[in-house]
Amino acid sequence: MSELWSGVITPDDERRYARAGFGHPVGMGSNPALLIIDVQYRTLGNTPKPFDEAVEDYSTACGDVGWTAVDHIAELLAFSRSAGIPVLYPHVAPKLSYDSGVLGAKVPSIMGVAAKGYEFPPEVAPLEQDIMLPKKHPSAFFGTPLISYLIGLGVDSLIITGCSTSGCVRSTVVDAFANNFRVTVPFDAVYDRSETVHKVNLFDMAQKYADVTSTSELIASLRSLGYGEKS
Amino acid sequence: MSELWSGVITPDDERRYARAGFGHPVGMGSNPALLIIDVQYRTLGNTPKPFDEAVEDYSTACGDVGWTAVDHIAELLAFSRSAGIPVLYPHVAPKLSYDSGVLGAKVPSIMGVAAKGYEFPPEVAPLEQDIMLPKKHPSAFFGTPLISYLIGLGVDSLIITGCSTSGCVRSTVVDAFANNFRVTVPFDAVYDRSETVHKVNLFDMAQKYADVTSTSELIASLRSLGYGEKS
Amino acid sequence: MSELWSGVITPDDERRYARAGFGHPVGMGSNPALLIIDVQYRTLGNTPKPFDEAVEDYSTACGDVGWTAVDHIAELLAFSRSAGIPVLYPHVAPKLSYDSGVLGAKVPSIMGVAAKGYEFPPEVAPLEQDIMLPKKHPSAFFGTPLISYLIGLGVDSLIITGCSTSGCVRSTVVDAFANNFRVTVPFDAVYDRSETVHKVNLFDMAQKYADVTSTSELIASLRSLGYGEKS
Amino acid sequence: MSELWSGVITPDDERRYARAGFGHPVGMGSNPALLIIDVQYRTLGNTPKPFDEAVEDYSTACGDVGWTAVDHIAELLAFSRSAGIPVLYPHVAPKLSYDSGVLGAKVPSIMGVAAKGYEFPPEVAPLEQDIMLPKKHPSAFFGTPLISYLIGLGVDSLIITGCSTSGCVRSTVVDAFANNFRVTVPFDAVYDRSETVHKVNLFDMAQKYADVTSTSELIASLRSLGYGEKS
Repeated sequence: MSELWSGVITPDDERRYARAGFGHPVGMGSNPALLIIDVQYRTLGNTPKPFDEAVEDYSTACGDVGWTAVDHIAELLAFSRSAGIPVLYPHVAPKLSYDSGVLGAKVPSIMGVAAKGYEFPPEVAPLEQDIMLPKKHPSAFFGTPLISYLIGLGVDSLIITGCSTSGCVRSTVVDAFANNFRVTVPFDAVYDRSETVHKVNLFDMAQKYADVTSTSELIASLRSLGYGEKS
Repeated sequence: MSELWSGVITPDDERRYARAGFGHPVGMGSNPALLIIDVQYRTLGNTPKPFDEAVEDYSTACGDVGWTAVDHIAELLAFSRSAGIPVLYPHVAPKLSYDSGVLGAKVPSIMGVAAKGYEFPPEVAPLEQDIMLPKKHPSAFFGTPLISYLIGLGVDSLIITGCSTSGCVRSTVVDAFANNFRVTVPFDAVYDRSETVHKVNLFDMAQKYADVTSTSELIASLRSLGYGEKS
Repeated sequence: MSELWSGVITPDDERRYARAGFGHPVGMGSNPALLIIDVQYRTLGNTPKPFDEAVEDYSTACGDVGWTAVDHIAELLAFSRSAGIPVLYPHVAPKLSYDSGVLGAKVPSIMGVAAKGYEFPPEVAPLEQDIMLPKKHPSAFFGTPLISYLIGLGVDSLIITGCSTSGCVRSTVVDAFANNFRVTVPFDAVYDRSETVHKVNLFDMAQKYADVTSTSELIASLRSLGYGEKS
Repeated sequence: MSELWSGVITPDDERRYARAGFGHPVGMGSNPALLIIDVQYRTLGNTPKPFDEAVEDYSTACGDVGWTAVDHIAELLAFSRSAGIPVLYPHVAPKLSYDSGVLGAKVPSIMGVAAKGYEFPPEVAPLEQDIMLPKKHPSAFFGTPLISYLIGLGVDSLIITGCSTSGCVRSTVVDAFANNFRVTVPFDAVYDRSETVHKVNLFDMAQKYADVTSTSELIASLRSLGYGEKS
């Protein structure tokens, strides 16, 4: 699987983590849920286009790499709905002046994203039964009642998708791990504005916190657990 | 400052983050505290030695890079004590069989670290007045009363040191950021088993969550805020 | 002060808590904030009226005792705004079908409160600068970013008002105490549907978690700390 | 069941809560755990004796009512162990000088409890496999990794016992409720220093957060769910 971070993580990096005994598979439990994090126009741009054009739409947009991930997220979403897997949407709530704080100091431009940036593209838009979690901070667990919904649903495993790999996705993965959920990150369903950063964060998550796999392998493995026959 | 991650983060990566408006300085408030995270023999090895030898002491040891960081942490610690800056020690609590969970699935070797691995080297050992925070998960905020101590002390800023850059340090930095503390990470006082991973995590934190600076610059800036005259 | 719970808490109850050393004053720090919890029509009824009529408006309404408290909350609110004390509104978010959970099992009627019940009466309505915290659970700290705002504002003390004394007020007081904020509960600015329950919960909070005082004494003590001269 | 709080809660109090639709049964899920909170000599006294003598052992001791509850907790503990129900011990960690905070302001005597007070009486002492959760604050969820153990164990229901009814028990019940665990409080397995306070807190929990029942009814209902045949 090392081609996921090839050209950035060196063989010696990999050897060291192997030596330390990291990176074993976690596996999935029997009751997964799908999280779709921050897949709003603000992380994509209004239409598929290169990064340098997308960033003109919204400073936080990733462009083409995001839209490619949207295709895989849409596939997972369709599968999850057909299989009765709960779908939750942690998403960025519009910033109000009192939200500035350290975030506004670190990334001032993030305070001025236009209203349309907070909308969801139709390919992965929530339906009425999906659980909406507006959030003000990176992790979907921080300052939201996510944990309460997951416990109420009896969820033991999380499939975590969306944006950015190094930001809201990673921090949610770390919190999910600390809470003892079994986490899978489909690498082609998460995205970031920098390829280097995307790759190293996938490596970190695969070594320490989560199973990292492709969307198609993930769907196959959900089927083998008995999910999806209803479709 | 880009030499901190040179050879890994590309100029185009940096350009993209700049384009998106990330990486502004956060600054420090008026009431900092020092966190020393997981600086125990288990992350270092019993004595300074290369990674491949240290890992024989404890699978989780980083070796020489850790001992180099210990020198900078010791400097910060001496300064903090002389200046009346509170010092807190989030640290790994010995693993009991019921602690296995997802962690034990992902990194089985972490469950078998010898008892001495949980001790602190004398260079950075806690004193009686320092606040001890045994923890079971990466972030110093997760499953510990850290936040309560910080609020009781009126802390508004955190200096975060220790190990690993990509693990317990980063997850603590992200939680501190979400809680609206102003965070500084002295890059020469944190360490990791992989240089690539260390660099990219410093970049991520500098772009999104924290100010990243050297120990000597940090001490100078604390002095300029009026700290340390007592020494 | 024992007349606050007279007729319910016995002299022997008071003697036992005194014997155990509970109930000392906490005092206020230098940077308070005002929380107004759940003061929406759903806890009041649409107009001042006795409990048995208010409960016809909304099953969760307390009636006259709530409207009496609203007068004191309005007084504190006017004072806080004139004095530059931050005001935060933790409030019940409209219930969606997926919010049922254990709450819906315990109190099924709470799921069907009419939309107008979630609105704020004009006497204590939020202004644009006030921090809004929609919540799904009793404590204002649970599943909301409240702590992050408080840390960002440098708050060390909380004035907690609203409804119900035994429910969302008390659970917020306990969490505030655990987080090491200094809490004051003005007894005439909190309300409940049962007088017995109201009194015993005031006693519990006064013994263990908070200072319990009248609104007028609280304003006087804020003035003596230097607040309010601007008004 | 109203005899549980008779003489304190009035028929009109009960009528009002009924009118508002509170107090429906929650029921138990399929995977309970037992919490034994703060059943240490410090909440009991060294031997069974009246309150006024017990309080001489430790200011925080409840005396005879605690020892009576210990008998019921011991019964639940034996049943849980025989039935494979996980047992967790949230308990008060010895107070260090830096733990004072608001707690030390409110209840100064709590800082000086003698070391033996933190030990467990043999009737309900933990075994090696039981999960230990030292804590610094009332709720077993605050500043501890409790939630992580519960999720790892797939727990959906909690049986909450110990001391005090109005303090650590109640705050843990409220947090468990907010997290969407189904909570049962056996009224004869929790205790407090004041009978009035004990009764009203049982009423509050029964109305809003938990099922309140006797230990013997609880064991019968666990048997009817299939637990305990192994015994």
